[in-house]
Amino acid sequence: MKFMDSIILVYIAGFLDGDGSIFFQIIPRNDYKQKFQIRSSIAFYQKTEYKEILEWLKEIFGAGYIRHRKTGISDYTIVESKKVRKILLLLQPYVRLKKKQTELGLEILDKLDTKKSDEDFLEICKLVDKFKEINYSKKRSITYENVNKFLSP
Amino acid sequence: MKFMDSIILVYIAGFLDGDGSIFFQIIPRNDYKQKFQIRSSIAFYQKTEYKEILEWLKEIFGAGYIRHRKTGISDYTIVESKKVRKILLLLQPYVRLKKKQTELGLEILDKLDTKKSDEDFLEICKLVDKFKEINYSKKRSITYENVNKFLSP
Repeated sequence: MKFMDSIILVYIAGFLDGDGSIFFQIIPRNDYKQKFQIRSSIAFYQKTEYKEILEWLKEIFGAGYIRHRKTGISDYTIVESKKVRKILLLLQPYVRLKKKQTELGLEILDKLDTKKSDEDFLEICKLVDKFKEINYSKKRSITYENVNKFLSP
Repeated sequence: MKFMDSIILVYIAGFLDGDGSIFFQIIPRNDYKQKFQIRSSIAFYQKTEYKEILEWLKEIFGAGYIRHRKTGISDYTIVESKKVRKILLLLQPYVRLKKKQTELGLEILDKLDTKKSDEDFLEICKLVDKFKEINYSKKRSITYENVNKFLSP
Protein backbone atom coordinates (compact mmCIF):
# COMPACT_ATOMS: atom_id res chain seq x y z
CA MET A 1 0.00 0.00 0.00
CA LYS A 2 1.37 3.35 -1.01
CA PHE A 3 1.74 6.44 1.08
CA MET A 4 -1.54 8.26 1.35
CA ASP A 5 -2.12 11.73 2.59
CA SER A 6 -5.13 12.49 4.70
CA ILE A 7 -6.89 14.45 1.94
CA ILE A 8 -7.12 11.30 -0.17
CA LEU A 9 -8.31 9.28 2.82
CA VAL A 10 -11.01 11.83 3.65
CA TYR A 11 -12.19 11.74 0.03
CA ILE A 12 -12.29 7.93 0.04
CA ALA A 13 -14.15 7.94 3.37
CA GLY A 14 -16.80 10.19 1.80
CA PHE A 15 -16.92 8.01 -1.31
CA LEU A 16 -17.31 4.85 0.79
CA ASP A 17 -20.05 6.46 2.91
CA GLY A 18 -21.82 7.60 -0.25
CA ASP A 19 -21.88 4.42 -2.24
CA GLY A 20 -19.61 1.82 -0.70
CA SER A 21 -20.14 -1.12 1.58
CA ILE A 22 -18.35 -2.95 4.38
CA PHE A 23 -19.65 -6.44 5.08
CA PHE A 24 -18.85 -9.76 6.68
CA GLN A 25 -20.00 -13.18 5.59
CA ILE A 26 -19.83 -16.62 7.15
CA ILE A 27 -18.81 -19.02 4.38
CA PRO A 28 -18.99 -22.85 4.64
CA ARG A 29 -15.51 -24.40 4.33
CA ASN A 30 -15.14 -28.13 4.74
CA ASP A 31 -11.37 -27.80 4.89
CA TYR A 32 -11.43 -25.30 7.77
CA LYS A 33 -11.05 -26.34 11.39
CA GLN A 34 -14.24 -24.52 12.34
CA LYS A 35 -15.99 -25.58 9.10
CA PHE A 36 -16.75 -21.95 8.36
CA GLN A 37 -14.71 -18.99 7.27
CA ILE A 38 -15.41 -15.37 8.14
CA ARG A 39 -14.95 -13.27 5.04
CA SER A 40 -14.54 -9.53 5.31
CA SER A 41 -15.17 -7.24 2.36
CA ILE A 42 -14.91 -3.58 1.48
CA ALA A 43 -16.66 -2.77 -1.78
CA PHE A 44 -16.98 0.36 -3.88
CA TYR A 45 -19.59 0.52 -6.64
CA GLN A 46 -19.82 2.72 -9.67
CA LYS A 47 -21.23 2.78 -13.18
CA THR A 48 -18.79 0.92 -15.45
CA GLU A 49 -18.56 4.15 -17.41
CA TYR A 50 -16.74 5.65 -14.42
CA LYS A 51 -14.55 2.63 -13.76
CA GLU A 52 -11.45 4.88 -13.67
CA ILE A 53 -12.24 5.85 -10.11
CA LEU A 54 -12.34 2.18 -9.11
CA GLU A 55 -9.00 1.64 -10.86
CA TRP A 56 -7.62 4.66 -9.00
CA LEU A 57 -8.75 3.17 -5.68
CA LYS A 58 -7.23 -0.21 -6.56
CA GLU A 59 -3.97 1.53 -7.43
CA ILE A 60 -4.00 3.29 -4.06
CA PHE A 61 -4.82 0.24 -1.96
CA GLY A 62 -2.75 -2.21 -4.01
CA ALA A 63 -5.19 -5.05 -3.39
CA GLY A 64 -8.58 -6.44 -4.40
CA TYR A 65 -10.23 -6.85 -7.78
CA ILE A 66 -12.60 -5.01 -10.07
CA ARG A 67 -15.63 -6.69 -11.66
CA HIS A 68 -17.82 -5.31 -14.40
CA ARG A 69 -21.44 -6.49 -14.26
CA LYS A 70 -23.76 -6.80 -17.23
CA THR A 71 -26.02 -4.28 -15.50
CA GLY A 72 -23.50 -1.52 -16.25
CA ILE A 73 -22.35 -1.42 -12.64
CA SER A 74 -18.78 -2.22 -11.65
CA ASP A 75 -17.42 -2.94 -8.23
CA TYR A 76 -14.02 -2.86 -6.65
CA THR A 77 -13.82 -5.31 -3.74
CA ILE A 78 -11.08 -6.08 -1.23
CA VAL A 79 -11.45 -9.29 0.78
CA GLU A 80 -7.98 -10.07 2.10
CA SER A 81 -8.55 -9.57 5.81
CA LYS A 82 -5.16 -7.98 6.48
CA LYS A 83 -5.78 -5.43 3.75
CA VAL A 84 -9.37 -4.84 4.90
CA ARG A 85 -8.07 -4.22 8.42
CA LYS A 86 -5.43 -1.78 7.17
CA ILE A 87 -7.97 0.13 5.06
CA LEU A 88 -10.48 0.30 7.92
CA LEU A 89 -7.76 1.66 10.21
CA LEU A 90 -6.85 4.30 7.62
CA LEU A 91 -10.45 5.39 7.02
CA GLN A 92 -11.68 5.13 10.62
CA PRO A 93 -10.93 8.76 11.58
CA TYR A 94 -12.83 10.13 8.57
CA VAL A 95 -15.92 7.98 7.95
CA ARG A 96 -19.21 9.37 9.25
CA LEU A 97 -22.00 7.08 8.09
CA LYS A 98 -20.03 3.89 8.52
CA LYS A 99 -18.40 4.70 11.84
CA LYS A 100 -20.10 1.80 13.67
CA GLN A 101 -19.29 -0.63 10.87
CA THR A 102 -15.64 0.41 10.87
CA GLU A 103 -15.29 -0.04 14.63
CA LEU A 104 -17.12 -3.35 14.76
CA GLY A 105 -15.29 -4.56 11.65
CA LEU A 106 -11.94 -3.90 13.30
CA GLU A 107 -13.11 -5.70 16.45
CA ILE A 108 -14.09 -8.76 14.38
CA LEU A 109 -10.79 -8.78 12.49
CA ASP A 110 -8.75 -8.42 15.69
CA LYS A 111 -10.67 -11.26 17.36
CA LEU A 112 -10.21 -13.46 14.29
CA ASP A 113 -6.47 -12.98 14.63
CA THR A 114 -6.38 -14.23 18.21
CA LYS A 115 -9.18 -16.83 18.18
CA LYS A 116 -8.32 -20.28 19.48
CA SER A 117 -11.39 -22.30 20.44
CA ASP A 118 -14.76 -23.00 18.84
CA GLU A 119 -16.21 -20.76 21.56
CA ASP A 120 -13.99 -17.89 20.42
CA PHE A 121 -15.16 -18.49 16.87
CA LEU A 122 -18.81 -18.56 17.86
CA GLU A 123 -18.36 -15.26 19.65
CA ILE A 124 -17.03 -13.80 16.42
CA CYS A 125 -20.03 -15.21 14.53
CA LYS A 126 -22.27 -13.30 16.94
CA LEU A 127 -20.38 -10.11 16.13
CA VAL A 128 -20.86 -10.83 12.42
CA ASP A 129 -24.61 -11.14 13.05
CA LYS A 130 -24.51 -7.81 14.88
CA PHE A 131 -22.62 -6.32 11.95
CA LYS A 132 -25.33 -7.52 9.57
CA GLU A 133 -27.98 -5.89 11.71
CA ILE A 134 -26.13 -2.58 11.46
CA ASN A 135 -25.97 -3.01 7.69
CA TYR A 136 -29.70 -3.89 7.66
CA SER A 137 -28.95 -6.77 5.39
CA LYS A 138 -32.17 -8.47 4.36
CA LYS A 139 -30.47 -11.21 2.40
CA ARG A 140 -30.58 -14.69 3.88
CA SER A 141 -27.13 -15.70 4.94
CA ILE A 142 -25.37 -17.93 7.41
CA THR A 143 -25.69 -16.61 10.97
CA TYR A 144 -24.33 -17.53 14.37
CA GLU A 145 -27.32 -19.86 14.87
CA ASN A 146 -26.39 -21.96 11.86
CA VAL A 147 -22.78 -22.30 12.89
CA ASN A 148 -23.71 -23.07 16.47
CA LYS A 149 -26.03 -25.87 15.34
CA PHE A 150 -23.20 -27.29 13.28
CA LEU A 151 -20.50 -27.06 15.91
CA SER A 152 -22.60 -28.16 18.89
CA PRO A 153 -22.24 -31.85 19.74
CA MET B 1 -23.65 29.16 4.56
CA LYS B 2 -21.35 28.51 7.46
CA PHE B 3 -17.60 28.43 7.49
CA MET B 4 -16.34 25.11 6.20
CA ASP B 5 -12.87 23.75 6.47
CA SER B 6 -11.38 21.87 3.56
CA ILE B 7 -11.57 18.49 5.32
CA ILE B 8 -15.36 18.69 5.34
CA LEU B 9 -15.43 19.80 1.72
CA VAL B 10 -13.17 16.93 0.66
CA TYR B 11 -15.46 14.49 2.48
CA ILE B 12 -18.56 15.96 0.83
CA ALA B 13 -16.84 15.84 -2.58
CA GLY B 14 -16.21 12.11 -2.04
CA PHE B 15 -19.78 11.61 -0.85
CA LEU B 16 -21.18 13.46 -3.88
CA ASP B 17 -18.96 11.47 -6.25
CA GLY B 18 -20.06 8.25 -4.59
CA ASP B 19 -23.78 8.67 -4.57
CA GLY B 20 -24.75 12.22 -5.43
CA SER B 21 -25.89 13.94 -8.57
CA ILE B 22 -25.56 17.29 -10.28
CA PHE B 23 -28.12 17.96 -12.98
CA PHE B 24 -29.79 20.64 -15.06
CA GLN B 25 -33.32 20.65 -16.40
CA ILE B 26 -35.19 22.86 -18.84
CA ILE B 27 -38.62 23.52 -17.35
CA PRO B 28 -41.58 25.03 -19.24
CA ARG B 29 -42.63 28.38 -17.70
CA ASN B 30 -45.36 30.36 -19.37
CA ASP B 31 -44.60 33.35 -17.17
CA TYR B 32 -40.90 33.50 -18.19
CA LYS B 33 -39.62 35.73 -20.95
CA GLN B 34 -37.95 32.78 -22.68
CA LYS B 35 -40.89 30.45 -21.81
CA PHE B 36 -38.45 28.05 -20.18
CA GLN B 37 -36.46 28.05 -16.99
CA ILE B 38 -33.10 26.35 -16.46
CA ARG B 39 -33.15 24.56 -13.14
CA SER B 40 -29.90 23.47 -11.52
CA SER B 41 -29.84 20.78 -8.84
CA ILE B 42 -27.34 19.14 -6.55
CA ALA B 43 -28.76 16.03 -4.90
CA PHE B 44 -27.47 13.62 -2.30
CA TYR B 45 -29.20 10.27 -1.78
CA GLN B 46 -29.18 7.92 1.15
CA LYS B 47 -31.30 5.28 2.84
CA THR B 48 -33.84 7.05 5.05
CA GLU B 49 -32.33 5.10 7.92
CA TYR B 50 -29.20 7.23 7.49
CA LYS B 51 -31.03 10.52 7.00
CA GLU B 52 -28.81 12.15 9.68
CA ILE B 53 -26.07 12.60 7.11
CA LEU B 54 -28.48 14.45 4.82
CA GLU B 55 -29.54 16.64 7.74
CA TRP B 56 -25.88 17.31 8.49
CA LEU B 57 -25.32 18.38 4.87
CA LYS B 58 -28.38 20.63 4.96
CA GLU B 59 -27.10 22.20 8.17
CA ILE B 60 -23.75 22.86 6.51
CA PHE B 61 -25.10 24.31 3.28
CA GLY B 62 -28.01 26.14 4.89
CA ALA B 63 -30.24 25.59 1.86
CA GLY B 64 -32.32 23.00 0.03
CA TYR B 65 -34.81 20.41 1.29
CA ILE B 66 -34.89 16.77 2.31
CA ARG B 67 -37.50 14.34 1.00
CA HIS B 68 -38.21 10.84 2.24
CA ARG B 69 -39.46 8.45 -0.44
CA LYS B 70 -41.68 5.44 0.18
CA THR B 71 -38.90 3.31 -1.26
CA GLY B 72 -36.83 3.91 1.87
CA ILE B 73 -34.53 6.30 0.05
CA SER B 74 -34.21 9.94 1.05
CA ASP B 75 -32.68 12.77 -0.87
CA TYR B 76 -31.33 16.18 -0.01
CA THR B 77 -31.62 18.54 -2.97
CA ILE B 78 -30.50 22.13 -3.48
CA VAL B 79 -32.01 23.98 -6.46
CA GLU B 80 -31.47 27.68 -5.70
CA SER B 81 -29.01 28.56 -8.45
CA LYS B 82 -26.94 30.95 -6.31
CA LYS B 83 -26.52 28.25 -3.68
CA VAL B 84 -25.79 25.59 -6.29
CA ARG B 85 -23.12 27.87 -7.76
CA LYS B 86 -21.55 28.48 -4.36
CA ILE B 87 -21.50 24.76 -3.51
CA LEU B 88 -20.01 23.85 -6.91
CA LEU B 89 -17.28 26.45 -6.37
CA LEU B 90 -16.52 25.03 -2.92
CA LEU B 91 -16.40 21.41 -4.12
CA GLN B 92 -14.67 22.03 -7.46
CA PRO B 93 -11.10 21.55 -6.17
CA TYR B 94 -11.94 18.18 -4.58
CA VAL B 95 -14.38 16.30 -6.81
CA ARG B 96 -12.88 13.62 -9.03
CA LEU B 97 -15.71 11.79 -10.77
CA LYS B 98 -17.83 14.89 -11.28
CA LYS B 99 -15.07 17.27 -12.36
CA LYS B 100 -16.56 17.82 -15.82
CA GLN B 101 -20.05 18.32 -14.40
CA THR B 102 -18.79 20.84 -11.88
CA GLU B 103 -16.96 22.88 -14.52
CA LEU B 104 -19.78 22.80 -17.06
CA GLY B 105 -22.32 23.48 -14.32
CA LEU B 106 -20.46 26.63 -13.29
CA GLU B 107 -20.25 27.70 -16.92
CA ILE B 108 -24.02 27.31 -17.32
CA LEU B 109 -24.77 29.21 -14.11
CA ASP B 110 -22.40 32.06 -15.06
CA LYS B 111 -23.95 32.34 -18.52
CA LEU B 112 -27.45 32.35 -17.02
CA ASP B 113 -26.43 35.33 -14.91
CA THR B 114 -25.36 37.41 -17.92
CA LYS B 115 -27.80 36.19 -20.60
CA LYS B 116 -29.77 38.83 -22.46
CA SER B 117 -31.19 37.57 -25.76
CA ASP B 118 -33.03 34.44 -26.84
CA GLU B 119 -29.83 33.49 -28.65
CA ASP B 120 -27.92 33.64 -25.36
CA PHE B 121 -30.58 31.47 -23.79
CA LEU B 122 -30.46 28.94 -26.60
CA GLU B 123 -26.69 28.70 -26.22
CA ILE B 124 -27.23 27.84 -22.57
CA CYS B 125 -29.80 25.19 -23.55
CA LYS B 126 -27.12 23.60 -25.72
CA LEU B 127 -24.80 23.49 -22.72
CA VAL B 128 -27.57 21.85 -20.69
CA ASP B 129 -27.89 19.20 -23.41
CA LYS B 130 -24.12 18.68 -23.25
CA PHE B 131 -24.39 18.36 -19.48
CA LYS B 132 -27.04 15.66 -19.86
CA GLU B 133 -24.79 13.75 -22.21
CA ILE B 134 -22.04 13.79 -19.58
CA ASN B 135 -24.53 12.49 -17.03
CA TYR B 136 -25.67 9.84 -19.55
CA SER B 137 -29.23 10.67 -18.71
CA LYS B 138 -31.56 8.33 -20.56
CA LYS B 139 -34.73 10.01 -19.37
CA ARG B 140 -36.71 11.96 -21.94
CA SER B 141 -36.54 15.61 -21.14
CA ILE B 142 -36.70 18.99 -22.81
CA THR B 143 -33.62 19.70 -24.92
CA TYR B 144 -32.25 22.61 -26.93
CA GLU B 145 -34.16 21.33 -29.97
CA ASN B 146 -37.52 21.68 -28.20
CA VAL B 147 -36.80 25.19 -26.99
CA ASN B 148 -35.46 26.25 -30.37
CA LYS B 149 -38.65 25.06 -32.08
CA PHE B 150 -40.63 27.07 -29.61
CA LEU B 151 -38.62 30.28 -29.83
CA SER B 152 -38.05 30.29 -33.58
CA PRO B 153 -40.51 32.42 -35.56
